[in-house]
Amino acid sequence: MSEASRRELEQLIDERVTAVRRHDSATLLRRHDDQVLTFPLLPPTASRGREAIEASLDQWFGGYVDGPGYEVHDLVVEADEDLGCCAFLYHVTGTLTTGDVVDMWVRSTAVFRRLADGWRLVHAHESVPFDPTSGRALTSERPPEL
Amino acid sequence: MSEASRRELEQLIDERVTAVRRHDSATLLRRHDDQVLTFPLLPPTASRGREAIEASLDQWFGGYVDGPGYEVHDLVVEADEDLGCCAFLYHVTGTLTTGDVVDMWVRSTAVFRRLADGWRLVHAHESVPFDPTSGRALTSERPPEL
Repeated sequence: MSEASRRELEQLIDERVTAVRRHDSATLLRRHDDQVLTFPLLPPTASRGREAIEASLDQWFGGYVDGPGYEVHDLVVEADEDLGCCAFLYHVTGTLTTGDVVDMWVRSTAVFRRLADGWRLVHAHESVPFDPTSGRALTSERPPEL
Repeated sequence: MSEASRRELEQLIDERVTAVRRHDSATLLRRHDDQVLTFPLLPPTASRGREAIEASLDQWFGGYVDGPGYEVHDLVVEADEDLGCCAFLYHVTGTLTTGDVVDMWVRSTAVFRRLADGWRLVHAHESVPFDPTSGRALTSERPPEL
């Protein structure tokens, strides 16, 4: 485990929180590798590349009249010199353009690779669990402290 | 990127496929770190430790009268000497004790740390996306090749 990498990755998550709150897509996109592999919260099941991220950020930020509020909880980092993984929960809140209120807990795994000019996100996985009986996504399950 | 680690991690995924098909919980459990952090497909939202894995494997295997069939697709590995991440899709099929037929595509991210006696799973994240309009989990979405 590299403590220096751990601190740098914690700072990247802080950077992400600030950027989401500011709807700052440019900062978020710069951190993504050209070929980032994404397993997103909403369809599609998987995507490759930064263009898909750009479209989903536009849709995300454009969908809110108030928000999204974005808080990170329970961050766990595994890191060596040039590869790192951040696992955390985020609490997203706000009001959509449809008038619907969002209050959702999401699991997030973010894998970073250190390149010559800094860390880049090479894989992101975001999700909620689902209830197999009803088939419904469980969007408001705050787990106990991990 | 360590090519030696990549090959070892690909072998771990092969080991997992064989073990699932044999309902071989012991082999699966041995690969999990004591403090593994899991974001599972079904509730809870998150869990810590090997005991939770053991209970969920018992429930998973016990739930099928035929299966689970388990095929891994589109495996992508990022690995350095002592840390690695595997991202892949798996196709799970079979018949439950309830008579329901399962035919599901799941996204999986598995993060491994090399310890003195071999690789251990330190973080696992499994999910399907959901449709925000209906609130339903999307369990049969086969994405195009990545």
